[in-house]
Amino acid sequence: MTEQARPTSAAPWRARLHEIVFEADTPEGRAFDVTLVVLILAAVVTAMLESVRSLPAAVHDGLVVAEWIFTALFTIEYGLRLLSVQRPLRYATSFFGVVDLLAVLPTYLSLLFPGSQSLLVIRALRLLRIFRILKLAHFLSEAQALRRALLQSRAKITVFLATVLIAVTIVGAAMYLIEGPEHGFTSVPMATYWAIVTMTTVGYGDISPGTAAGKLLASLLMVLGYSLIIVPTGIVSAEMAQQAMRRPISTQACPSCSREGHDADARHCKWCGAAL
Amino acid sequence: MTEQARPTSAAPWRARLHEIVFEADTPEGRAFDVTLVVLILAAVVTAMLESVRSLPAAVHDGLVVAEWIFTALFTIEYGLRLLSVQRPLRYATSFFGVVDLLAVLPTYLSLLFPGSQSLLVIRALRLLRIFRILKLAHFLSEAQALRRALLQSRAKITVFLATVLIAVTIVGAAMYLIEGPEHGFTSVPMATYWAIVTMTTVGYGDISPGTAAGKLLASLLMVLGYSLIIVPTGIVSAEMAQQAMRRPISTQACPSCSREGHDADARHCKWCGAAL
Amino acid sequence: MTEQARPTSAAPWRARLHEIVFEADTPEGRAFDVTLVVLILAAVVTAMLESVRSLPAAVHDGLVVAEWIFTALFTIEYGLRLLSVQRPLRYATSFFGVVDLLAVLPTYLSLLFPGSQSLLVIRALRLLRIFRILKLAHFLSEAQALRRALLQSRAKITVFLATVLIAVTIVGAAMYLIEGPEHGFTSVPMATYWAIVTMTTVGYGDISPGTAAGKLLASLLMVLGYSLIIVPTGIVSAEMAQQAMRRPISTQACPSCSREGHDADARHCKWCGAAL
Amino acid sequence: MTEQARPTSAAPWRARLHEIVFEADTPEGRAFDVTLVVLILAAVVTAMLESVRSLPAAVHDGLVVAEWIFTALFTIEYGLRLLSVQRPLRYATSFFGVVDLLAVLPTYLSLLFPGSQSLLVIRALRLLRIFRILKLAHFLSEAQALRRALLQSRAKITVFLATVLIAVTIVGAAMYLIEGPEHGFTSVPMATYWAIVTMTTVGYGDISPGTAAGKLLASLLMVLGYSLIIVPTGIVSAEMAQQAMRRPISTQACPSCSREGHDADARHCKWCGAAL
Repeated sequence: MTEQARPTSAAPWRARLHEIVFEADTPEGRAFDVTLVVLILAAVVTAMLESVRSLPAAVHDGLVVAEWIFTALFTIEYGLRLLSVQRPLRYATSFFGVVDLLAVLPTYLSLLFPGSQSLLVIRALRLLRIFRILKLAHFLSEAQALRRALLQSRAKITVFLATVLIAVTIVGAAMYLIEGPEHGFTSVPMATYWAIVTMTTVGYGDISPGTAAGKLLASLLMVLGYSLIIVPTGIVSAEMAQQAMRRPISTQACPSCSREGHDADARHCKWCGAAL
Repeated sequence: MTEQARPTSAAPWRARLHEIVFEADTPEGRAFDVTLVVLILAAVVTAMLESVRSLPAAVHDGLVVAEWIFTALFTIEYGLRLLSVQRPLRYATSFFGVVDLLAVLPTYLSLLFPGSQSLLVIRALRLLRIFRILKLAHFLSEAQALRRALLQSRAKITVFLATVLIAVTIVGAAMYLIEGPEHGFTSVPMATYWAIVTMTTVGYGDISPGTAAGKLLASLLMVLGYSLIIVPTGIVSAEMAQQAMRRPISTQACPSCSREGHDADARHCKWCGAAL
Repeated sequence: MTEQARPTSAAPWRARLHEIVFEADTPEGRAFDVTLVVLILAAVVTAMLESVRSLPAAVHDGLVVAEWIFTALFTIEYGLRLLSVQRPLRYATSFFGVVDLLAVLPTYLSLLFPGSQSLLVIRALRLLRIFRILKLAHFLSEAQALRRALLQSRAKITVFLATVLIAVTIVGAAMYLIEGPEHGFTSVPMATYWAIVTMTTVGYGDISPGTAAGKLLASLLMVLGYSLIIVPTGIVSAEMAQQAMRRPISTQACPSCSREGHDADARHCKWCGAAL
Repeated sequence: MTEQARPTSAAPWRARLHEIVFEADTPEGRAFDVTLVVLILAAVVTAMLESVRSLPAAVHDGLVVAEWIFTALFTIEYGLRLLSVQRPLRYATSFFGVVDLLAVLPTYLSLLFPGSQSLLVIRALRLLRIFRILKLAHFLSEAQALRRALLQSRAKITVFLATVLIAVTIVGAAMYLIEGPEHGFTSVPMATYWAIVTMTTVGYGDISPGTAAGKLLASLLMVLGYSLIIVPTGIVSAEMAQQAMRRPISTQACPSCSREGHDADARHCKWCGAAL
């Protein structure tokens, strides 16, 4: 965030607060972030353990108390974040703003509707903040390289996913006709669920083919699923390799025709022939 | 399809109809395709839900009615397609022509043979039309890049699949001898089915080895299946990387300095600046 | 096989027989090979079906008769192969020679020891001959590219497999201590078998952890196995990519110092500076 | 280890012992290492079999005796290693020093605490020594190439693992709310365990969704897990390809024609022939 976006003239305390709460460059900011991530981790584990019914009552009561302490701390943190930014509404409607709110809301709602605490696990999303601490810029650029590779491959991935979905629907319908309800294939949606379980090589075994024809079709689907994973693998590999190995291209523009995209070793513009 | 292939002089209404029904470039054509894809999706879900027996009778009756409405609409669409093309037989025998017919036939057949509605899920194949809508040319070229990579690797893939099939047959026969019918390996085909389930890492668990020797052989097959997936992955990766990184380079030599290696779109020698 | 290796002067009928039985270049040789592969496929399916106990007696008797016919034909073929080569012992001890013998032996042995027919599935190995028919040279070069890539990566693959084996042994022992016999982990070898089933993502479910600590350790092993598959994938991919993308190197030797390995675009020897 | 680090003047017998016990270059050293690896393998198998309860008492007693013999031999070996190095403490606190101690300790401890023998499987770690025998330098460089590729990708791998962990936590909590204890999802940690089993495509089937909504969410998680494996695959592939294809190129410019891009081992400019 540049100085233009956050004029310090208006309120120096706000700029200082912003630096601590939102940035991780200063020692205070880093300490704040580390504390926060530890708190989030503890809060997620607390929310998960709270659902375990076999724990003794004393432990469960302790977890409930911890829950309220975490919620209080996160509520204060949410307030500080709202205070420290120039435009609170913009933060409140951003991705992390919504997540920060959802992280405290369920505890208060649980006073009205019991059972909603389980939603507290949404706090896990806040762990994404962890990347801010560990060499911020470095990690974010990695994540962006990933995102860019995925974006460039999205057409191929769509083709792949559509193929998978069409295949499991067709095979599901065929298995419903072959196996029938007596082997657990009680409907086409159920058979399609089985086809997904099989094609992704998960294979629970809660439903499995009982007839010879069904086993033959299942075998074909397994080999298809086992082999198909190659295709997207190859796709993304190629995209990433392409990005990593891109032939060096000069950023120099031609002084005569102003076109760019020359090779790093070019001495003349390949478009108009002017010397570079 | 170029103007030569579809002369508008013969019947302007047919050219217009063709543009709407088969193309996605005009607003009307795009609207037609979007409506069609939504209808197909709804029809597939309807056909799937119809097989769920636990639904109340009223819902089931509604689904049957919806089924007939979809079939009527698709029949009309099939007629329009036949009308709009110059050579109806050629369309009727094409891939999409056959799929379009199969998408309506089962409903009519169900009057004669009850139960054939389940085949309606073949309508899912029509969803392949979806690629026409979303940036047609782009998606098709992606699909073709995939197909080309697969075609170039087909020799290696054949070697891979043959190796897998021979391995599961041999291991299946060995497991039948080792485990025998008392552990579920009732015949060699059954044991081969188990070997496929194991080697593809699906692992239902409906049959699993009971003796120490059987578990040892199963462990070897698992590690083989776990490692073998590398080979085709590497193959297709390499093919795609090769295609992606092949930047078009002209074979033209510079008339002035005789150097080669110019980009396909270069108009001047990048070394001496002479016109190519 | 060159003329030097198989002098036709000695016995023209042998050379002719060799061409039919061992080669696939002449129409007769190709017809012989296609017939053979069809026979092998039929014989493998026969041997597999023979083990299915639920077949009616008449079908089973038919299969036994077919079995003897296939064995007679393969015995004649084995004799022809021995006759057609100059050095029968060399063929008899080669890979295919042994497989050809093993393909007929079990049927004769079954007269002495009933049950040995199941070994007939070893005939599946003969299917490797199929590659001779379909564009022989092309397929073999593909298989060799695969073999070369695997050979070059064998050091990395050994490191990978050793890591997997050591990991499953350690985790197996730990799970035996954590879970104990009451959850099916009756011994360290049994727990190691479970660890292999889990790490390779097969997951039968015949044994699965019952305690919280066991489930935690199992989760770690699953994530490790799920992630580890990346490493060999990357290895072989890189090897194959390297082979496919090798930078063009001239085969020209320096006229002055006779060293090779110059770039395709080099004009002077990079070792001694002499003009190429 | 260079001569500076291990002065032979101090104690020639120690240098000689060191060469046998720690190196694999001399015939004696190699013989020592091969013997050791065979002993370790036998000891690991012994420790594993000892836990099998169904073995007859005589065999079990034999295994216990073998156990003590192996422990005695490894104790002597540990002593020799301590003797042969200049700084015993440094060896004792190194990775292999600790492993060597842990390999003998449990047997002695079993006199005090019965059951601790199972820890003997930690001896498997000593098998890592095997790499010293088989072309030492070659294998270690391979392992280092692997380690370097993993290290360079560690940022991307962290992003990937964090995404997986956050996904299974969220889906686990959602499944606990959807399915509830009646289908085996007794708590959020249990549901998270199920999500890991599903996302890694292991799929035991000890817990599986029972409701339609649960099956839908499970299907999404399976397809996600099935597709996600692409991402790290692509990452590491790209890293390894990058390393493999980086042919060392000198940054030196030709003193005569000033062109760059020479190989690191070039002694003359490949363009004009001038000495570099």
